[in-house]
Amino acid sequence: MTAANAGASAPQIRAANRLEAFAATAEFDRPTLVLDVDRVEAQYHALKSGLGRADIHYAVKANPHRAILERLIALGSHFDAASRGEIELCLSLGAKAEHISFGNTIKRAADIAWAHSAGITVFAADADEELEKIAAHAPGASVYIRLIVETSNADWPLTRKFGCDRDTALRLLDVAKDLGLTPLGFSFHVGSQTRRAEFWEPTLDEMGAIWQAARDAGHDLGLINIGGGFPAFYGEAIQAPAEYAARVMEMVEARFPGAAKIMAEPGRGLVAEAGVIACEVMLTSRKSERDVHRWVYLSIGRFSGLAETEGEAIRYEFATPHDGGPTGPCILAGPSCDSADVLYEKRPTQLPLALAAGDRVLIRNTGAYTSTYSSVCFNGFPPLDVVAI
Amino acid sequence: MTAANAGASAPQIRAANRLEAFAATAEFDRPTLVLDVDRVEAQYHALKSGLGRADIHYAVKANPHRAILERLIALGSHFDAASRGEIELCLSLGAKAEHISFGNTIKRAADIAWAHSAGITVFAADADEELEKIAAHAPGASVYIRLIVETSNADWPLTRKFGCDRDTALRLLDVAKDLGLTPLGFSFHVGSQTRRAEFWEPTLDEMGAIWQAARDAGHDLGLINIGGGFPAFYGEAIQAPAEYAARVMEMVEARFPGAAKIMAEPGRGLVAEAGVIACEVMLTSRKSERDVHRWVYLSIGRFSGLAETEGEAIRYEFATPHDGGPTGPCILAGPSCDSADVLYEKRPTQLPLALAAGDRVLIRNTGAYTSTYSSVCFNGFPPLDVVAI
Repeated sequence: MTAANAGASAPQIRAANRLEAFAATAEFDRPTLVLDVDRVEAQYHALKSGLGRADIHYAVKANPHRAILERLIALGSHFDAASRGEIELCLSLGAKAEHISFGNTIKRAADIAWAHSAGITVFAADADEELEKIAAHAPGASVYIRLIVETSNADWPLTRKFGCDRDTALRLLDVAKDLGLTPLGFSFHVGSQTRRAEFWEPTLDEMGAIWQAARDAGHDLGLINIGGGFPAFYGEAIQAPAEYAARVMEMVEARFPGAAKIMAEPGRGLVAEAGVIACEVMLTSRKSERDVHRWVYLSIGRFSGLAETEGEAIRYEFATPHDGGPTGPCILAGPSCDSADVLYEKRPTQLPLALAAGDRVLIRNTGAYTSTYSSVCFNGFPPLDVVAI
Repeated sequence: MTAANAGASAPQIRAANRLEAFAATAEFDRPTLVLDVDRVEAQYHALKSGLGRADIHYAVKANPHRAILERLIALGSHFDAASRGEIELCLSLGAKAEHISFGNTIKRAADIAWAHSAGITVFAADADEELEKIAAHAPGASVYIRLIVETSNADWPLTRKFGCDRDTALRLLDVAKDLGLTPLGFSFHVGSQTRRAEFWEPTLDEMGAIWQAARDAGHDLGLINIGGGFPAFYGEAIQAPAEYAARVMEMVEARFPGAAKIMAEPGRGLVAEAGVIACEVMLTSRKSERDVHRWVYLSIGRFSGLAETEGEAIRYEFATPHDGGPTGPCILAGPSCDSADVLYEKRPTQLPLALAAGDRVLIRNTGAYTSTYSSVCFNGFPPLDVVAI
């Protein structure tokens, strides 16, 4: 990363904390995600204090960086894995197999068999065929049935990709038993970035009713997995994590009688605020003398780590060396030759008018769902680098 | 890739050609793009026969696989590079620097300097700041100015990310001269997947008028770069490549008098049909007894190579072992825990009812814009593998 504007008198980014101070001044040769693992630890303690008796299964997919996993293992966290690759990673760093759930409802038969041989005992499912695969390749395993959520107040409600409806779920509990599996209970996901605890209420009501229906049908359920949805700060107010988690647990305890075990799977809410991306301005331009918007091109885009800007869903916050000076609206885009590689256009971003090629830019709260989304070498650009301080 | 349904009596995919025959039967341990470089060569000859005196600059970003680049170098192709990484790759395989254009309008100053030192002499630009960077770091270089296209008949017209309007372009020709650069002419892009040659006409009219305006203003232009847009077959009829290219050239010759040099940058049109992805069915399910659509989950999704299904833009064609049997509508999704990882939902796909976990599936004409879009390890899944036969 060259800083064309660098020099003794060049303006500096005003860093908000230790993480930003490092990201603002260190030398990087390409866009880099900088992680502060102490902030992950602080967030873990805050969530844990609110979640009480629930087990935290960190959603590894949010950020599988070794430093994060090692710290969480030391703190006693459990893990939710999406694939064989994530399980192998957790085990290689010292996580115990009994603390890892294989939470993807879509698994290869060979990966189920491998996980079973590695000591994994808890698997997610939402379909007959998945239960058959688990019974065949992990005989006697424990399963939880993923429920579909029809009501969500999340910023990004999930699609119908995961889960099944009430009648199917109740039937699958029987199917699991018939296949020699142990159906533990249910899981669900309230939706990504559910900003306030009270937003959980309609979903918990819906899920609690299915829990009750299963008990009424004679199923002795002991586990409820409340999934993720724990928010990160992207400019819109969110509740503090301890208070948020405590309020969610209060609502959960009231709706799932008999749940001896409660699992929670924070991902974004645990690691997003522990990361900042350092990148640089590649170019600023106007397409026409008549255009009111500038275009600002960054060295990182949708295909090199910022995939969650699709549909302008996440509005990341930026820090630049010119903050405090006059600003203007700009369309923000990535560096590739792909015309879809545009971050914010429908709702342009306000950035300093003084911004120019070579200026370093920090993208705040980017610790989740960035580094692993990065493409291997789209347009010949190397993937997002990651360093932990 | 395990084939749960494999066996002596298991149905086989009916392969349409040598490429598919290999992809249908070879052993793969993960989703794999199989390339037939002879088909790239055949397509190169077909396009070249129609393009006549125009130089083909293969858009490396479409697929930078070594076997493709080596074959194209042997055939005398030139190259359009999007980054320092792509230039380094082409040079390392024996391409001559004078045959490589640095066609991304968004370049780091340090990469311009590096390219200049490596012998690259032709650069794209669409803004003052870019010309200033080129003049500072590649003094005396040749440049072409990228024009914005307002009228397009392409399946996917490009956004306004690249190019500038007429007045800006004419002004930039003067700026380039004042900076000591050599302005050669213009480039534009008609839009991706322009299925018929006659669809180019309004764009060529628009670009030709700007060419004429520049000549009227006293600019002695010698280069027109007509970009890409050459189509691949994704189920909708396209014109044959030789005839298509010849008709485009006929229209180009009529509109750009004085263009001693013509560049064309096919990417997709050169390599898409030379590739097929082999993957497998992970799971089939229904969310509810009342749902009319099945869900079919593949071992590859939007984040592992099929990025161009975003917005259901590309409708890939599939081959399965059960083709010819009864079919039904299904929603097709990828294997990750990301709910956005859904390929076709708004318009479901017809697939055989007999399809089950473990079945191999071929995805046709996937040689372009797949392997490099693949994420490094999203959800712990390794990137799309690539083999050339």
